[in-house]
Amino acid sequence: MTEQEPLPVGVLGARGRMGVEVCRAVNDADDLELVAMVDAGEGLFSVTDAGARVVVDFTSPETVMDNIHWCVEQGVSVVVGTSGFTPERLHRVEHWLKHKPDVGVIVAPNFAIGAVLMMEFAAKAAPYFPSVEIVELHHPGKIDAPSGTALHTAEMIGASRAAAGVGPSPDATKTALDGARGAEVAGVRVHSVRSAGLVAHQEVLLGTGGETLTIRHDSLDRVSFMPGVLLAVREVLKRPGLTVGLGPLLGL
Amino acid sequence: MTEQEPLPVGVLGARGRMGVEVCRAVNDADDLELVAMVDAGEGLFSVTDAGARVVVDFTSPETVMDNIHWCVEQGVSVVVGTSGFTPERLHRVEHWLKHKPDVGVIVAPNFAIGAVLMMEFAAKAAPYFPSVEIVELHHPGKIDAPSGTALHTAEMIGASRAAAGVGPSPDATKTALDGARGAEVAGVRVHSVRSAGLVAHQEVLLGTGGETLTIRHDSLDRVSFMPGVLLAVREVLKRPGLTVGLGPLLGL
Amino acid sequence: MTEQEPLPVGVLGARGRMGVEVCRAVNDADDLELVAMVDAGEGLFSVTDAGARVVVDFTSPETVMDNIHWCVEQGVSVVVGTSGFTPERLHRVEHWLKHKPDVGVIVAPNFAIGAVLMMEFAAKAAPYFPSVEIVELHHPGKIDAPSGTALHTAEMIGASRAAAGVGPSPDATKTALDGARGAEVAGVRVHSVRSAGLVAHQEVLLGTGGETLTIRHDSLDRVSFMPGVLLAVREVLKRPGLTVGLGPLLGL
Amino acid sequence: MTEQEPLPVGVLGARGRMGVEVCRAVNDADDLELVAMVDAGEGLFSVTDAGARVVVDFTSPETVMDNIHWCVEQGVSVVVGTSGFTPERLHRVEHWLKHKPDVGVIVAPNFAIGAVLMMEFAAKAAPYFPSVEIVELHHPGKIDAPSGTALHTAEMIGASRAAAGVGPSPDATKTALDGARGAEVAGVRVHSVRSAGLVAHQEVLLGTGGETLTIRHDSLDRVSFMPGVLLAVREVLKRPGLTVGLGPLLGL
Repeated sequence: MTEQEPLPVGVLGARGRMGVEVCRAVNDADDLELVAMVDAGEGLFSVTDAGARVVVDFTSPETVMDNIHWCVEQGVSVVVGTSGFTPERLHRVEHWLKHKPDVGVIVAPNFAIGAVLMMEFAAKAAPYFPSVEIVELHHPGKIDAPSGTALHTAEMIGASRAAAGVGPSPDATKTALDGARGAEVAGVRVHSVRSAGLVAHQEVLLGTGGETLTIRHDSLDRVSFMPGVLLAVREVLKRPGLTVGLGPLLGL
Repeated sequence: MTEQEPLPVGVLGARGRMGVEVCRAVNDADDLELVAMVDAGEGLFSVTDAGARVVVDFTSPETVMDNIHWCVEQGVSVVVGTSGFTPERLHRVEHWLKHKPDVGVIVAPNFAIGAVLMMEFAAKAAPYFPSVEIVELHHPGKIDAPSGTALHTAEMIGASRAAAGVGPSPDATKTALDGARGAEVAGVRVHSVRSAGLVAHQEVLLGTGGETLTIRHDSLDRVSFMPGVLLAVREVLKRPGLTVGLGPLLGL
Repeated sequence: MTEQEPLPVGVLGARGRMGVEVCRAVNDADDLELVAMVDAGEGLFSVTDAGARVVVDFTSPETVMDNIHWCVEQGVSVVVGTSGFTPERLHRVEHWLKHKPDVGVIVAPNFAIGAVLMMEFAAKAAPYFPSVEIVELHHPGKIDAPSGTALHTAEMIGASRAAAGVGPSPDATKTALDGARGAEVAGVRVHSVRSAGLVAHQEVLLGTGGETLTIRHDSLDRVSFMPGVLLAVREVLKRPGLTVGLGPLLGL
Repeated sequence: MTEQEPLPVGVLGARGRMGVEVCRAVNDADDLELVAMVDAGEGLFSVTDAGARVVVDFTSPETVMDNIHWCVEQGVSVVVGTSGFTPERLHRVEHWLKHKPDVGVIVAPNFAIGAVLMMEFAAKAAPYFPSVEIVELHHPGKIDAPSGTALHTAEMIGASRAAAGVGPSPDATKTALDGARGAEVAGVRVHSVRSAGLVAHQEVLLGTGGETLTIRHDSLDRVSFMPGVLLAVREVLKRPGLTVGLGPLLGL
């Protein structure tokens, strides 16, 4: 009986802050083998040359689509942590995958298990509460507002409420300063706080008569993403086609 | 075609703080009819005399077991919000119900939808996090610590972790003042805060490397319990035997 | 030696939600006497006819200025809880008071001791932290956003930072959805959350490298305002001229 | 006109986690010069040989008293961050300082500005609220419970309430599981939460009728202590005798 061969993995964006952590985590995993590290400006050929069967992409919104397209064409499955995914981009990925029935792509706005559970629980609870709002809090170096996780959470909540036939949250506001009531995403108000001393945090507040339910995720360290990234690497070969979010992988 | 008759309901502990709210809520519901109100020192016969098919019990730990026994014997189903239920008490109720296959008893430590979701989500998330602790916060007039909701939450979490084979939460504490690390319930540390200005609140904190997930329920008004009480009243006839908690009624 | 006479007090807006509580609190205080209750549409003459030396105003932004003007002219001191005070309005009150050196007016955006302390502490801490933002959370029936308390807090923080020569909070946001980053008040971002199950809550978040300080006030019941209202009633005669906020009365 | 000489500073416990950060911070400060680094098992002579005028001690409860005694005898002022200070220990330090009128010792349970403000604000607010409790939350590797900061906070609150003549917090608890109500320190209940994913956090909850005030400090990184350490190093020569906590240095 032979021991199972480790799965060959390539990392794109290998010298970025997330990429460095991913390389370390893949190296430390007995069942995975880091066979290619590619950074900005380097060719993707080394990935296939090295025989990678799965690629992890933490690059930039500008290059991620080309990366995915190329990998799918080569029959390499992809785990994507890069932000900036619109419904339109997801449709394009799905289109590419039609011609490659064995290839899988997992796009996740957040790989922290706690963030995934927060999103799933919020969507599940949303139909029971007339009111729901999101407050996300990040370090002041973040360039986009709201965060990708907040957008994804709002969309999941909006879909869940629509499916249950729940109407808009009650709001008697008549006079408001510009911006006070936040941004509206899929019918959910989202507020983005930026402050020194913060890392990445999000709170979903759900309310009904006399009670509120608050689901909060605090991410203090990039290491919190690694269990989710490795889970996706191990699962992507078993899940051909497009998977959005880690929820399905956790059986939620 | 005849319209459906309203369901006849009796309330035990009808003049207590919760009982008053239950009577009002039953009165306000078109599909329910309040046929009997019984308070401490009054006989239970009026309940059956009035034809109640379901009884709601918000009395005291001293009288609730006699009340349930009597109702079950008379073929009346019971929704119980009274606190103080131990596993031993639940076994006794189950035993009584064996001889009455049509009668249902629902015992719930908390009827607020948000509290039920908090407990279910905490139990579901618990296997993914090595650490879990509970902080419950109540008004200073509360006589027991921890709260019944906190005990029930801890037991659900403990069962969920045991089923998943998760070991005890890490804790390097060597020197501690008496009580600093809380009470241990089913392997979960529980801390009880009492303060003026509070009503009924609970926070479940789950932690793993670099991230935490916090699920918090705030109950500011007794009205938050009424939707759950009415749901239980409507469902108990369809659920013969013993049901613990509202989770099953919400399809969770 | 004679016992001190109780202070005669009138209440404007006496049948509003706050007014009812004020009347009850004045009635219950041994050193105060409720001599006049005036509501919308009723003349103010009963106040002076009854000999009120202090008037409490919880009316509406539309009528409060006329009420104050009239009282000041009659030599009656005023405690004002009505919202909607701009710097311009405060200047007008100060102008009226110039001719009446014995009359005092106290305008407070919030009479809860905890809210007053939150504002004072936030202003005191603000120079030590490069970042500061405010999240206020209220029931969905509130018609203005942000709340008067949040506006007043932001202005106090802004003044404190200006006096200490602290620059704007760091913020690298490049792309944001409309409203995501809140409203800007005196250089402070303010976010207004509205949800069923809430009453009146506010959180001030202050951050610097590696740490945050959060000051939060939760007001669950109108009774929390009464100690502050009574304190103001007792103090206003000793404080001729205009006083804004309860801070000075608490020796803060 | 000559430029001011940098202040010569020695660090005890220089290779510990905090010591390493202190050495780096002293090195980076233009007005300070790192002249001696001493670790466990090494003699203290190098400190005086190198001409240090101020020593920073982040060692252990076992050695800190000997270190302070020796430095005071040599006329060297000391900034102490080591934990484990009891009132008895502080008295001994005061006794040593009597014979050295030019030497200063600053003992601080926490050098984070936010933590210092939390403690000062909590003590200042405590007389206004009948109820006060502390919840401190730390990583599971911490060996003592409650934390030194929580103990110091409780003692400051206790002293402030005693001075104002405030009685014990109301508490109707009749039946409690062992430990549920926390540890009692200076009349204040303290709860210690330990969880993976946490660093160092503390919440002081103050409550009165209908409202609560919560002051929370989150420390995510050791860098948050450095501004306070450097402030103490610069101030200790101007403050002969014993100073406890950074409050006086911040003018609070």
